[in-house]
Amino acid sequence: MKKTFLTLAILSTVAQADEGMWMPQQLPQVAKQLKAAGLKLDPANLTKLTEFPMNAIVSLGGCSASFVSPQGLVATNHHCVYNSVAVNSTPERDLLANGFLAKTHAEELPAAPGSHIFVTKDVANVSDKIISPEVAKLAGKARVDAMEKNMKSMVAECEKDAGHRCTVSSYYGGLEFYLIKQLDIRDVRLVHAPPAGVGKFGGDTDNWMWPRHTGDYGFYRAYVSKDGKSAAYAKDNVPYVPQTHLKIAREGVKEGDFIMALGYPGRTSRHRLPSEVVAAFDWDYPTFVRVSAETLAIIARETKTNEDAKLKYAGQVANVNNYYKNRKGMMNSYEGSDILARKTREHADMKAWVNANPARQKEYAADIEQVEKLIAQRDAETKRNFLLPRATPQLLTVARRLYRLSNESTKPNAERKTGYQERDLPTLTASVAAVERSYDEKVDKALVLNFLKQYAAQPKAERNASFDAAVGVNDGMSEAQLQAVLDTMYAGSKLGAKEERAAWVGKTPADFKASNDSFIKAAVAMYDAGMKREAEEEELAGKIQQAYATYMKAKIAYMTSKGQPVYPDANGTLRVTFGKIAGRDHGADGTGSWSAFTTVKGVVAKATGEGEFNAPAAQLAAIQAKDFGKYVDPKLKTVPVNYLATLDITGGNSGSAALNSKAEFIGLAFDGTLDSIISDWDFNKANTRDIQVDVRYMLWNMKHVDKADNLLKEMNVE
Amino acid sequence: MKKTFLTLAILSTVAQADEGMWMPQQLPQVAKQLKAAGLKLDPANLTKLTEFPMNAIVSLGGCSASFVSPQGLVATNHHCVYNSVAVNSTPERDLLANGFLAKTHAEELPAAPGSHIFVTKDVANVSDKIISPEVAKLAGKARVDAMEKNMKSMVAECEKDAGHRCTVSSYYGGLEFYLIKQLDIRDVRLVHAPPAGVGKFGGDTDNWMWPRHTGDYGFYRAYVSKDGKSAAYAKDNVPYVPQTHLKIAREGVKEGDFIMALGYPGRTSRHRLPSEVVAAFDWDYPTFVRVSAETLAIIARETKTNEDAKLKYAGQVANVNNYYKNRKGMMNSYEGSDILARKTREHADMKAWVNANPARQKEYAADIEQVEKLIAQRDAETKRNFLLPRATPQLLTVARRLYRLSNESTKPNAERKTGYQERDLPTLTASVAAVERSYDEKVDKALVLNFLKQYAAQPKAERNASFDAAVGVNDGMSEAQLQAVLDTMYAGSKLGAKEERAAWVGKTPADFKASNDSFIKAAVAMYDAGMKREAEEEELAGKIQQAYATYMKAKIAYMTSKGQPVYPDANGTLRVTFGKIAGRDHGADGTGSWSAFTTVKGVVAKATGEGEFNAPAAQLAAIQAKDFGKYVDPKLKTVPVNYLATLDITGGNSGSAALNSKAEFIGLAFDGTLDSIISDWDFNKANTRDIQVDVRYMLWNMKHVDKADNLLKEMNVE
Repeated sequence: MKKTFLTLAILSTVAQADEGMWMPQQLPQVAKQLKAAGLKLDPANLTKLTEFPMNAIVSLGGCSASFVSPQGLVATNHHCVYNSVAVNSTPERDLLANGFLAKTHAEELPAAPGSHIFVTKDVANVSDKIISPEVAKLAGKARVDAMEKNMKSMVAECEKDAGHRCTVSSYYGGLEFYLIKQLDIRDVRLVHAPPAGVGKFGGDTDNWMWPRHTGDYGFYRAYVSKDGKSAAYAKDNVPYVPQTHLKIAREGVKEGDFIMALGYPGRTSRHRLPSEVVAAFDWDYPTFVRVSAETLAIIARETKTNEDAKLKYAGQVANVNNYYKNRKGMMNSYEGSDILARKTREHADMKAWVNANPARQKEYAADIEQVEKLIAQRDAETKRNFLLPRATPQLLTVARRLYRLSNESTKPNAERKTGYQERDLPTLTASVAAVERSYDEKVDKALVLNFLKQYAAQPKAERNASFDAAVGVNDGMSEAQLQAVLDTMYAGSKLGAKEERAAWVGKTPADFKASNDSFIKAAVAMYDAGMKREAEEEELAGKIQQAYATYMKAKIAYMTSKGQPVYPDANGTLRVTFGKIAGRDHGADGTGSWSAFTTVKGVVAKATGEGEFNAPAAQLAAIQAKDFGKYVDPKLKTVPVNYLATLDITGGNSGSAALNSKAEFIGLAFDGTLDSIISDWDFNKANTRDIQVDVRYMLWNMKHVDKADNLLKEMNVE
Repeated sequence: MKKTFLTLAILSTVAQADEGMWMPQQLPQVAKQLKAAGLKLDPANLTKLTEFPMNAIVSLGGCSASFVSPQGLVATNHHCVYNSVAVNSTPERDLLANGFLAKTHAEELPAAPGSHIFVTKDVANVSDKIISPEVAKLAGKARVDAMEKNMKSMVAECEKDAGHRCTVSSYYGGLEFYLIKQLDIRDVRLVHAPPAGVGKFGGDTDNWMWPRHTGDYGFYRAYVSKDGKSAAYAKDNVPYVPQTHLKIAREGVKEGDFIMALGYPGRTSRHRLPSEVVAAFDWDYPTFVRVSAETLAIIARETKTNEDAKLKYAGQVANVNNYYKNRKGMMNSYEGSDILARKTREHADMKAWVNANPARQKEYAADIEQVEKLIAQRDAETKRNFLLPRATPQLLTVARRLYRLSNESTKPNAERKTGYQERDLPTLTASVAAVERSYDEKVDKALVLNFLKQYAAQPKAERNASFDAAVGVNDGMSEAQLQAVLDTMYAGSKLGAKEERAAWVGKTPADFKASNDSFIKAAVAMYDAGMKREAEEEELAGKIQQAYATYMKAKIAYMTSKGQPVYPDANGTLRVTFGKIAGRDHGADGTGSWSAFTTVKGVVAKATGEGEFNAPAAQLAAIQAKDFGKYVDPKLKTVPVNYLATLDITGGNSGSAALNSKAEFIGLAFDGTLDSIISDWDFNKANTRDIQVDVRYMLWNMKHVDKADNLLKEMNVE
């Protein structure tokens, strides 16, 4: 096996470039590579958003997913349905611990409030409409304002088709814009999730790690009104019938097989300037890591004997932990790498190419020069403002949003700031209401005090004068003094109460000005300076957009001149990545190499009967009894659990359907390995591996442990 | 590196047999292998218990350790000093979390009550005195009684040398006996332990796992009276000056290097009969795993909202977890292996060799035949009695011990049962007093009820009649009835109170008989039947000892006839194992191969800032800053943490000094990998790897993170 493995690993490195989060319409540009990698479909098929297989691919907003039955059954990751399981859990009926299976449609449970399933219907290049000839003449804030106006009217027009959500997304750093129209399914129901001991097996400990043994899968169902329209939850709604759905592969996968994942990657930084690389790795990430460690330690300390507060902050802890590990992983990979040197060289080569030709020089050179200066300016602002949001009480932030809403509401809807328009109100109101689900005054105050001390220690010129005045921060204040300031502020507000916050939605600016609530008063006091700062930021943003678009245009021209297609950085829109199922000829610290697959044997080895590795007794018994049915891999001689592939994914791809060469469902992408994370900046072919849950593990566990025969039948597996 | 690694791995498999827990006096038998493996010392040096290096090797009773300075400084594992750190911890001064360092002798803290350091002074073969010609004629219980009498008088004679502990240990399954005399140092003080985030990094999750990153080290100091005698703790005691101590290696180790570990392995079963293998793997281990899972689940459920009870049962949970993982690991390795087939064949070969010669047949054959039957008889008893101790309330067990003590105390000391003699009293009293540290009535009752249900469901003939009568168990009782029985019993006893239990030490049997305490009454009621059962067990044990000794004698003769030296199974006495530092050409589930070393890079990758992977911020900062000093491995380019070797160790070896070819200290053995555990039954050369903490990691962390310069100076490192 070892020899085969090495051969394949080398093969995949040499022959198949696996870098690239391709927009579906770009796939003809890489048709040759797709065919060489093993795709049996016509690559052109993948460009059609309303046909198989692309139409089966959906977004959950932050996660990817796919239709796997004609009745709107949606497969995604366990961690993508996690909140829906959590909100339906009670101490008496702990669905997180025990898992959940609806045996009939009637037993399905409403997903967490705010759950959506977005089906992409249309993607249109609207670059020329956003940067119209008139806009092209504008600069700074005027440019940003005009672009925003164009976007808002375009979105408003598009959303006249009721039940749809429309978005204008920026590609290539503001060079191109696409209007994306999605069917917005709002009645989402939880169908099935395995116990956390399967779906979250390994917990934070195994997050970003290999070998991995996580059954990270779960199922939703999309519901619409009887006439097939998007609708809020209603008992009478019916399952949504997708135009197409994915079929489950009958044959298992093996090392070396073609694989592609279709999903919605969130954000990458592959086209960034060398100076942006420096800013991220020299300042942003180390600072984030330091601040995260402090945050985690404070939350742990403050919630130690308060189970309720611990639960409230569990989400934040998981989130901070995830990024903490992510950023550390990035920093480790960056250190000692040649990324900066290479990016610097590539950038210099590009500039040399620009300058080698007078026409190119005229078109690009000035903006390329300019963008570096503007970015430096923005970075300085970022550093200066870094501590402030952390030194701001959560309820003050809420108060500022509420007051902003009140002011925006005085304008006609079309002129309101994005985020405060009528279409944004449900989301905004829900988030204001949800505060207490993740808020505890004692914990919040301890966090704020920690960062307020650091903030207050900055020179006055680097602080925010309106915040200082509103909160009462002065030079040289002691910790005790800052503590007293906070005590007074927190004691002077009623915003901790849900009804109180809700009552402020819809009030006039005059109402706010008349309030004696400490946080409302501070929000009012900070408003004018805040608006002024926002205008300055927009002025800078407008300049950057203009110059950055030119830089990207030059880069694309340069790459095209070398015959290389350029995919845009991830921006939360539908993408395709393809590659091979492959282990790695070098492992990580303490391992010489990685196999492509893990198996249920590893589940047994890791199982501890408690905590993060609490594999269910029924599952362990089934493994012990070799109750494997037809899900045994012929080579591994047991049930595979997770496998590695060379796919190019990032956050947002969670839940992406993994497909074989015939576009059949072979699993779900759910993670990458720690030393792959750096691929957000720089795709390293030798290192990068993402992790899938093998569909055979899903089906085996559903059939032999959780007895989800109804779903297997629905997916046409049994 | 990969190529070198494979070469060495093959080399070590072919040329160096790493199986064998050799008694020091046996080493001349394997002198050739020791030299071939790379030992630079004369193997004869290792046979002298009072000289370097053997005299530096000590036992902590359950753990191994070694002197590493002329002032009695003792190095061992963090998990071996864990309890001493725990008992000195308070919420305000959390030594477990923060670590502990005594900067001066005065700052050292008393180790946990009952801590000892045993320095082996003499080991003498006393087989002929235990099985004297008179004893050899006896059988059954008479034989056991006579042997016990001989042992007790030998121990009493030996312990006349005050401050020494003497033990008669059985070797080769009762064929040989050795009297071991140890200096018993009772004033043990805690000198240094890193934070749990180093010493226990990885927790239960990483236990038995590779890759590993645990700084499993800690330091004690041995104290004696001013005149150099063993003494209880006293302020005026002085550091013990060992006859010799280990020197820290100046040079780091690398893959392929010779390594040996000196320590006190607890128990192995390599010479067991095929039928014993069957009993263990078909019944003992699976049953243990099932029962452990139930125990862990019940403790988790019952302590969920009771932090105090959770703490009380933390030790038991850790212990059960450890064995749970251990037994599962054994079962996994056993499954599909050829162990039983091979053992059966080897046993058949041995029998054939015996039967091929009339003299041999006459000497051995009958007993070999007989031992199989006796073992089968004992196994049946084991199964029948398995549930009873688990269905017995903890305080009833205590009551039975107290009543037994009372009865034994009516006899002259020399005639009392081992465990109830005057020399045993301090230990017995301490353990009776310590009950509440790990006892909670609600938890105990829930555990007992669970197993009592299973016990009561057994046919009456398989139950214990005296227990049934004393407790009130009848055929066909419902859960509610059993619960009621327990409720009444628990409510009727005051033994939950420490003073109450203490008061029963020293009382007469008449006092017990007069008591109305429910557990005392039950203990009295069960006494006569218990003594009868013990006599029956001793009758069987006497027969087994006789037959088993003959079987082992035959086996040794058979092996010797093939030119193979035979080391005895581990029995908690001083042993030597030697081999190579080596990774493995096959990994575990999901890994293709294992490297021999892990590094601090892996610490950073695993660190989560909380829980089991809570590496201290100061350590992470030192790694980030590359503050490595002289502890960088030239090949790994960073500080090594743990390394694999082919040593033959088991539980009890924890804390064993790992030595290089010049007998210099190169680290501490602390664990094996999950698929090595089966080596307790069958040493698999290709698989078995044990795990050491690299002395360079210890020294680096002590110097660059914990600033333990005083200890480095004492160890002559700086």
